[in-house]
Amino acid sequence: MDQGIYWYLLGTAAAVLTTFGFVPQIIKMHRTKSARDISAVTLLQFTAGTILWAFYGYHIRDIIVISANIISFIIMIVAIILYNFYSRK
Amino acid sequence: MDQGIYWYLLGTAAAVLTTFGFVPQIIKMHRTKSARDISAVTLLQFTAGTILWAFYGYHIRDIIVISANIISFIIMIVAIILYNFYSRK
Repeated sequence: MDQGIYWYLLGTAAAVLTTFGFVPQIIKMHRTKSARDISAVTLLQFTAGTILWAFYGYHIRDIIVISANIISFIIMIVAIILYNFYSRK
Repeated sequence: MDQGIYWYLLGTAAAVLTTFGFVPQIIKMHRTKSARDISAVTLLQFTAGTILWAFYGYHIRDIIVISANIISFIIMIVAIILYNFYSRK
């Protein structure tokens, strides 16, 4: 029996979970209007990471690595904007 | 000229940035003794993601994917323990 589909689904689930990892944090910041406890360094570190991963994906010609990290990058930019807005309150 | 080393360094930098992405957040929780604004869903989502990525790394026989995600998993467990401890205060 071909088990390839299960590994493919597992890899996809892994990618979806981590790519959209900061979405619940964005929702929480938006709801509570508070971001004081959040680490700006963690946000910037992940943002820098997604940029480098996207370039690396271009190098290895992997469209999944490129697109997942472009999506992550956009999510991180939204998180940083909300952080800047709510951490000063 | 061989540019392979630069791509290798770029990939390594990307992996280090994201693997240790939650370390600054752990340091901030420990310093401020506060975790109220942090999303538990984000922490659990990344933890689940690292487990699935580690299994996927085993499937594709990639020692880098396996080890980076085992390290990330341990970091996420530390983050969840600190979150549980400080978010109730």
